[in-house]
Amino acid sequence: MKRLKATISYDGSGFAGYQVQPESRTVQVELMKVLKTIHKGKVVQVVASGRTDAKVHATGQVIHFDTEFSIPVSGWLKALNVLLPEDIRVSSIEEVDASFHARYHTTGKTYRYKWDRSPIISPFTRNYMVHVKQPLDVEAMRTAAQALIGTHDFSSFCAANTAVVDKVRTIWRVDFEEHGNELHMVIEGSGFLYNMVRIIAGTLTEVGIGKRTAEELGGIVASAERDAAGKTAAAHGLYLESVMYKS
Amino acid sequence: MKRLKATISYDGSGFAGYQVQPESRTVQVELMKVLKTIHKGKVVQVVASGRTDAKVHATGQVIHFDTEFSIPVSGWLKALNVLLPEDIRVSSIEEVDASFHARYHTTGKTYRYKWDRSPIISPFTRNYMVHVKQPLDVEAMRTAAQALIGTHDFSSFCAANTAVVDKVRTIWRVDFEEHGNELHMVIEGSGFLYNMVRIIAGTLTEVGIGKRTAEELGGIVASAERDAAGKTAAAHGLYLESVMYKS
Repeated sequence: MKRLKATISYDGSGFAGYQVQPESRTVQVELMKVLKTIHKGKVVQVVASGRTDAKVHATGQVIHFDTEFSIPVSGWLKALNVLLPEDIRVSSIEEVDASFHARYHTTGKTYRYKWDRSPIISPFTRNYMVHVKQPLDVEAMRTAAQALIGTHDFSSFCAANTAVVDKVRTIWRVDFEEHGNELHMVIEGSGFLYNMVRIIAGTLTEVGIGKRTAEELGGIVASAERDAAGKTAAAHGLYLESVMYKS
Repeated sequence: MKRLKATISYDGSGFAGYQVQPESRTVQVELMKVLKTIHKGKVVQVVASGRTDAKVHATGQVIHFDTEFSIPVSGWLKALNVLLPEDIRVSSIEEVDASFHARYHTTGKTYRYKWDRSPIISPFTRNYMVHVKQPLDVEAMRTAAQALIGTHDFSSFCAANTAVVDKVRTIWRVDFEEHGNELHMVIEGSGFLYNMVRIIAGTLTEVGIGKRTAEELGGIVASAERDAAGKTAAAHGLYLESVMYKS
């Protein structure tokens, strides 16, 4: 038996998210369908670094699965990309130790959130960026984001209906990049709670349009109350960019 | 009665092309539906600079229509973008002389054709660029393209089943731009025959992969035979970028 680790990307537009759901098209279902075909009808479990919601994209999601087949990794890469639908691609694949676990062994993740600041949104970005008509004060967003850096109880930035008890996480960096009309937030940390990046993006959007001040962020974190933070930003602006593991 | 000229963009992925077709979703049908709503049920004809095929995109298609309403142009821009589906956007609109005609008065057009040269195509570009796995010799493509510049009978680069008699057109420039893994061909000319840009793109792809030499292009043009040229490149790599009118 061999364990394989694969890095995959997917256009979230056509999926009800990553995880298997009855009667919905999900990334996991598509992966399992293809692995079942390759393994002649045998069900192969696929483990990802974590779920992504409906419409959320990935450029560097990581999965693992076990196989008894001794195909070289280049053969796996080719076979998977031939059989998978075009909105999922495997960008790399490698054999790993049998103890490797795509979910339990993550040490950090990077997410990217994209806004389109064009006066009129392009039909080409409508599923890939969130359109903001009002001018955004990027400097205020940068200042506000500094309050998130470090180890905090992130209850204010966690969907209220989550079952997770320990809401302490560490954020290492929050950077803003401007590419013409595009504004990207790149956020990196030890781990993220349910909807955490989207609630951060939504709250920082409110700072950007002047509805909140940058100085409020510290208080929002300290309150540990979901109601203190802003709205959850739309899913289609979010990308899971990379997953880190102990090397 | 006022004549309005609008510049529109559309993501061709969801359309069976520009022109009205029974039981198909087309750009013209969507535009006419919205204009009918605005004009309280009255049918308003829409004239475009020309048709685009299924899956072909536009970033600068031009249309005109007549209206008796005296809404300011900023109001038109807003109303159209609110009512149109998200895969069509109006980027600008202006009042023009009643003699202006979006199709008959064009003096030139610019098209862009996009290739993705990544080893593995991204799920995000699959509908917007054509994937080429083989390395492309861009210098050979540039050299070959020079044979197209000028006024020629472009019968070799016209779909065989077209009814047009005069196949003489003038190409002003063919430029290649490299943006990382993306290769763009920008082609500008007085007018284009049916499938002309796609047959040019397909023939130059064959030069790029070494299936034809750059020197063959002159002979292909001179032959005035569709069979002499290469395959018609896929529709989803093509963008109508701008339409020129006498100013």
